[in-house]
Amino acid sequence: MEIPVIRDVLEESNAIARDNRTAFDRHSVFVINMMSSPGAGKTTILQKTIPILKERSISCAVIEGDITSTIDADRLRPLGVPIVQANTEPFGGDCHVGSHLVQAALKYLDLSSIQILFIENIGNLVCPAEFYLGENRKVVVLSLPEGEDKPLKYPLMFRECHLCILSKLDLAPHLDIDLDLLKSNIHKINGGLDIIHISAKTGEGLSEWVDWLVNRILSLG
Amino acid sequence: MEIPVIRDVLEESNAIARDNRTAFDRHSVFVINMMSSPGAGKTTILQKTIPILKERSISCAVIEGDITSTIDADRLRPLGVPIVQANTEPFGGDCHVGSHLVQAALKYLDLSSIQILFIENIGNLVCPAEFYLGENRKVVVLSLPEGEDKPLKYPLMFRECHLCILSKLDLAPHLDIDLDLLKSNIHKINGGLDIIHISAKTGEGLSEWVDWLVNRILSLG
Repeated sequence: MEIPVIRDVLEESNAIARDNRTAFDRHSVFVINMMSSPGAGKTTILQKTIPILKERSISCAVIEGDITSTIDADRLRPLGVPIVQANTEPFGGDCHVGSHLVQAALKYLDLSSIQILFIENIGNLVCPAEFYLGENRKVVVLSLPEGEDKPLKYPLMFRECHLCILSKLDLAPHLDIDLDLLKSNIHKINGGLDIIHISAKTGEGLSEWVDWLVNRILSLG
Repeated sequence: MEIPVIRDVLEESNAIARDNRTAFDRHSVFVINMMSSPGAGKTTILQKTIPILKERSISCAVIEGDITSTIDADRLRPLGVPIVQANTEPFGGDCHVGSHLVQAALKYLDLSSIQILFIENIGNLVCPAEFYLGENRKVVVLSLPEGEDKPLKYPLMFRECHLCILSKLDLAPHLDIDLDLLKSNIHKINGGLDIIHISAKTGEGLSEWVDWLVNRILSLG
């Protein structure tokens, strides 16, 4: 009698992620997994970041994760970089981008001509934190209107990430938010997390974020 | 040879939810499942709503869903209503409140003395929409900084809900948001969804929301 073996989903997922990473490393592609709550500003930040990277002659591509629709991909289309829309709906409306979806997306990308690949994950501060996709760095975008307590309430996300972008800085004067408390909460969860303040509206902080990216590409050698 | 039967998780979850509902109906408790992205303002709305309901002699209780921490429950504690903190962390850090957690919470609540039970779900615009907990109504809170496109990108949530609260109305003058487009996007997904604008900061819209609740309690008979 044959005994069926059910592999842990996470084990399978990680194996695919390691394959993705092997492909990225072979071509020295630096991969960022961008995560946040819905509407924290990931797409807007990419809209503002990619032209700056292009000016610095750094080639980019985007895997755009969404449950359904191509709304975000359509917003990025005018930037003229390769974009693959990865919808989780045909796979059951998954609440996060899976490594198998990244693997599928790679068929449509020429890795040899890409220096930075952004994976814009689905807007969700919970589940995406649990899955490794093969990325070099995980970045969480937290918009100021979400409040100071989010790192304490969604600790895994902040524990897993390498950089926290605090977005919508331009709204700070209109919010009852204590930025020092927010930063202290972030570092209570993850003392090593880099923090960059950004207003995509005014442009504040964008060059610091681009420098953070470029320094990490250079370190790939 | 005995054949193991694996029951669909959703089937099991729904069976528990129906038991919850039977208990609610027996005591004429009106139950609201409140959902939103992280930081959309669910707790703040409850902080402002419950005192108004108390003034109108309507008794409330709250099941406070969070992955970890009692931050939100602590904020509601001064209101002097029964609160049960339901953390999903011991169950593996679930990204939504499950019907079994509501069932467990009911052991700590005297349903015969409650007219409205609020279940504050985990901040997540995706997964909580998939699970029936036994509630009478589902309410989604969408904060204006999240943008007009959210109903199109997270359609299940807006399809499942009976009321959409548009929160942080006071920030509207500082955002590039088209409220008519937002409402049209909501109704594109769910033409029957009620919409109420709220600013918990200024109090605007709170009485409309309380009226919405009270009308529905009265209809329970």
